[in-house]
Amino acid sequence: MSLQVANGKKLYIQEVAPRDGFQNEMQFIDTDQKIALVDRLSDAGYAKIEVTSFTSPKAIPALRDAEEVMHRIRRNPDVVYTVLVPNVRGAERAMECKVDEINLVMSASETHNRANLRMTRAQSLAQLADVIASVSSERVAINVSLSTVFGCPMEGDIDPYQVFELVGRFATLGAHGVTLCDTTGMAYPSQVARIAREARKLFPKLALTLHFHDTRGMALANTLAALDEGIERFDASLGGLGGCPYAPGASGNACTEDLVHMLNLMGYDTGIREQELLDIASGLPGLIGHELPGHLNKAGLRSRLHSVPTRC
Amino acid sequence: MSLQVANGKKLYIQEVAPRDGFQNEMQFIDTDQKIALVDRLSDAGYAKIEVTSFTSPKAIPALRDAEEVMHRIRRNPDVVYTVLVPNVRGAERAMECKVDEINLVMSASETHNRANLRMTRAQSLAQLADVIASVSSERVAINVSLSTVFGCPMEGDIDPYQVFELVGRFATLGAHGVTLCDTTGMAYPSQVARIAREARKLFPKLALTLHFHDTRGMALANTLAALDEGIERFDASLGGLGGCPYAPGASGNACTEDLVHMLNLMGYDTGIREQELLDIASGLPGLIGHELPGHLNKAGLRSRLHSVPTRC
Repeated sequence: MSLQVANGKKLYIQEVAPRDGFQNEMQFIDTDQKIALVDRLSDAGYAKIEVTSFTSPKAIPALRDAEEVMHRIRRNPDVVYTVLVPNVRGAERAMECKVDEINLVMSASETHNRANLRMTRAQSLAQLADVIASVSSERVAINVSLSTVFGCPMEGDIDPYQVFELVGRFATLGAHGVTLCDTTGMAYPSQVARIAREARKLFPKLALTLHFHDTRGMALANTLAALDEGIERFDASLGGLGGCPYAPGASGNACTEDLVHMLNLMGYDTGIREQELLDIASGLPGLIGHELPGHLNKAGLRSRLHSVPTRC
Repeated sequence: MSLQVANGKKLYIQEVAPRDGFQNEMQFIDTDQKIALVDRLSDAGYAKIEVTSFTSPKAIPALRDAEEVMHRIRRNPDVVYTVLVPNVRGAERAMECKVDEINLVMSASETHNRANLRMTRAQSLAQLADVIASVSSERVAINVSLSTVFGCPMEGDIDPYQVFELVGRFATLGAHGVTLCDTTGMAYPSQVARIAREARKLFPKLALTLHFHDTRGMALANTLAALDEGIERFDASLGGLGGCPYAPGASGNACTEDLVHMLNLMGYDTGIREQELLDIASGLPGLIGHELPGHLNKAGLRSRLHSVPTRC
């Protein structure tokens, strides 16, 4: 398996904390501090950063400063700056900010799509098709994030072929990439392997991203299963920021520094030094007013040695 | 890889909370409550339970009731009851209690062995050889747990061939099993795969157990790597009980219910229902006076569905 053959293979790490993380915080994060954070992340070696969301400021007040953040961040040409876009109006706002990519979202589960987006999947598909058509003449990449691919907290298991049909629809419409999201941490390794293998076989030209949550402790195990099937792109959130609305107190997003630490130890080329991430993450609790769920910010790097204790 | 071929393969789950977990608690756990816990664990489907430690009551007052616990627990003939034994005196006490197995401990790291056991490795080896000789005429299995196999918090990386030399010495002395312990959570998946493969090749007749800590979030990923190399025996601790002395606040032992949940989902036969473990674990915070680090006790089982929220 791929455990032994990393050999410097390039992986693409995509940071979602500024959007997926901050969106879930109760208190508004100051715009200048958001910009400072994204600017630090821009120098850390990421392939992509999800900066903000062009949704209605009423729907998500935490990200009501989307335009200002996108306009004022310093753009590193090696980083893809992506934003979440729910509709044509959002796409127009995003294009005015010259984003590199727009990220569209819908759910693989009918129940979750209705609960989360207040539309049927058919309505979401039609709305997102309009968005894609509206930017077809623009130089912008299109990614689609599909929620609850590995299970819905209300429906349970989702038939993978429902997922693949959706992926196929978006591929035909012109999406460049699709993210398979484990929205509430229901994925498990053998399932991840099965779905990742089939998705790669069915859609060899799509950029496939895996987005895991650590809700039930399996984020890194699932990453291993995805790596073994040749997946190269992973979403993660600094410090593990971003909760799980169905399980208060449970971990949410996979933690970027925990993920990068493991991948670097295994000999993959993530382009990111985990110490740099830890340094950036150390400022987050002050910003958001609570501790982070990740492991490395408590345990320290594997390479950080200790002095001999006087009493062990 | 083995992700797809679990097919009901039998795995042996070994519970360490009553010894490894309680030993690290500040407050003394009432003897009756220890016994009640072990009795519930005995019916849960475990292959082995590490019940207590026959060390000096002065050294580890938390387990000063070792004899009483061993005498009063109800013994399930399907479960191996093992105890930690540091020396010949401890072995004599354990044999009087008719334990099924004695578990000997030393460290693969010279510095950690000196810090933890106040002996050189050579002195530990000699002392444990005496223990093995002292029980050679008895009907008792002998396991040796080697600490810091995947890294020492003071020395860093440990040469695997130092580990294998120790394993070989104990195999020659008559040990039935060896546990490779990731004492402070320094193991990573490609390293686990390499060491597990080599250990199985060198010692095909030894019962090899892997003992992971989740200090840096990799316990389940490391389990996956070990499974892929054919490892069938895993230590874990209910609720993730048991800390990491080198990183206050960090997670310690791999959490049994998180582990069993993943393995069952993957189609392995652990013999354990994770809901039963969650029920037992729910009583632990009241016993120890603090929350548990595991994930599942906060997030709930994957199979536990939610009703549709009024506002998602």
